[in-house]
Amino acid sequence: MTPRPHTAVIGLGAMGLPMATHLSAHLPVTAYDISEPRLAQLAAANGTPAATPADAAVEADVVLLAVRDQQQVETALFGENGENGVTATLRPGATVILTSTVGPEAARATAARLADLGVHTVDAPVSGGPVRAGNGDLLIVVGADDKALDLARPVLDLLASTLTVVGPRPGDGQALKAINQLLAGVHIAAAAEALALARGLGLDPATVVESLRHGAAGSFMFADRGPRMVQAYEDGPDPEVKSRLDIFVKDMGIVTGVAKDAHVPVPLASAAQQLYLLGEAAGLAAHDDSSVVTVLSPKSPKSSKSPNSPEGGTR
Amino acid sequence: MTPRPHTAVIGLGAMGLPMATHLSAHLPVTAYDISEPRLAQLAAANGTPAATPADAAVEADVVLLAVRDQQQVETALFGENGENGVTATLRPGATVILTSTVGPEAARATAARLADLGVHTVDAPVSGGPVRAGNGDLLIVVGADDKALDLARPVLDLLASTLTVVGPRPGDGQALKAINQLLAGVHIAAAAEALALARGLGLDPATVVESLRHGAAGSFMFADRGPRMVQAYEDGPDPEVKSRLDIFVKDMGIVTGVAKDAHVPVPLASAAQQLYLLGEAAGLAAHDDSSVVTVLSPKSPKSSKSPNSPEGGTR
Repeated sequence: MTPRPHTAVIGLGAMGLPMATHLSAHLPVTAYDISEPRLAQLAAANGTPAATPADAAVEADVVLLAVRDQQQVETALFGENGENGVTATLRPGATVILTSTVGPEAARATAARLADLGVHTVDAPVSGGPVRAGNGDLLIVVGADDKALDLARPVLDLLASTLTVVGPRPGDGQALKAINQLLAGVHIAAAAEALALARGLGLDPATVVESLRHGAAGSFMFADRGPRMVQAYEDGPDPEVKSRLDIFVKDMGIVTGVAKDAHVPVPLASAAQQLYLLGEAAGLAAHDDSSVVTVLSPKSPKSSKSPNSPEGGTR
Repeated sequence: MTPRPHTAVIGLGAMGLPMATHLSAHLPVTAYDISEPRLAQLAAANGTPAATPADAAVEADVVLLAVRDQQQVETALFGENGENGVTATLRPGATVILTSTVGPEAARATAARLADLGVHTVDAPVSGGPVRAGNGDLLIVVGADDKALDLARPVLDLLASTLTVVGPRPGDGQALKAINQLLAGVHIAAAAEALALARGLGLDPATVVESLRHGAAGSFMFADRGPRMVQAYEDGPDPEVKSRLDIFVKDMGIVTGVAKDAHVPVPLASAAQQLYLLGEAAGLAAHDDSSVVTVLSPKSPKSSKSPNSPEGGTR
């Protein structure tokens, strides 16, 4: 184990930037992102910007991937048209930490390609959101063999308050993350149905959240997203984007794909997937995921009866 | 308010018997049920058995209905072929407490018929299960005007640890109960999908419950039913029946019916309803609701590959 491994962070998005910033206080960090402003923010936090993933990885002992999906993982690692990817410069014996949610099969395939180059893989999807990412307070579920885990430990220990080793293979962490996302995505959608129906029945949604959150109907998501769904109904500004709706478009796609491959029926997860897709189709991709409630019951009750008015509709 | 109202309890099922037994320690209780053994149990607990609902109601100030569904409510109140119902003997000015989950419309229709006879109605669906019913520790959500609530208070206060007055009309309690059941029923079905998929991905379901129950994927039902679903997979005895699966066949039917009438889409609740119907079709109506997991993933993993073996299938 290198106690202060040179770390390359690829992807400075909602999760990548706070993780890279937090790591920069403890380790030498070089980072790449397509966004110049994000790179500037990292530089202001003591990190070193790089022009390409390959440049970021030149001196890296550990590469932390914090990109959106499997396509971005492949581009980051193996380059666009085979150029400028991490593996163009990364030394054999280095370790790639995959923090994105991409599904078990994608993680296994990626690990196999990296193993051919002598590079270790730690499958380590993260949960907790941007604020906790910046405080080293993430939940990380890991699939990795002991050697890879040992090499990645200094970085993982800085990022995680809870680190669960699910199994020895890349993909094992993704499997548990998929279960987590199934429950989280269904619970958010259930909260939306509950509050849309509450309003439809003439109940006050805010009172319903308070009445039910501590009982047999309670969930983390009902208590967390419920008040923001109530806010999403109101005529004021939309709720702050804590987690984008299109993350669940992606993740419920992974869940239903994994389930299909395993021949396990998941009718609720499939219904939730369709609901997030409806949210995306309604233009809510970059809104907070709590805005999915407006797919079921429109934002403004007054304007909902006048579809031709400017503020009508289900935006 | 009568401080110790004569109370007639109609229905001595999983909830009715413990409620009647608990009330018998504090009030004069007369009760009716079709089952002689249940009546004998009530008699042993200081209650007075009656031969018909009408007989039970002769001296009643308050009638507590604890029957299964709206059809049984109507039979109990208005009789079979118009005979032997509560209203044949109940005095005007008495109060009926409706503890069953029947939906807002049914509660309103029942209250209207009773009002024509000068009888008050308290819509008061209960939650909490048999053990809490026997300890006066139920959650009760009420729709009733002040007069009716006042008359029912001595009984409700004995039964409830938490009493929420939702609104002044019968049906208001049912509306909140429908929202509660939407969330509870969807969360149980989501737990089933999560644990069936976990097993399909080679994860240990018991470990998954422990890993995820306290995080963003957590729900009351995942923590409560999850361990029983794990047990439902095993080859030992089925989980003890704490709440029958067919209760959710009924209640998700109410939820989707109410939602249809309110023109609110509830795709997850509809998927959950179908899952409980599949459970019923598989012979699980009287099993614990956690057994719904076996619809998604069969009980014994070894026998699941031999559908012709005696222990195969999805019972």
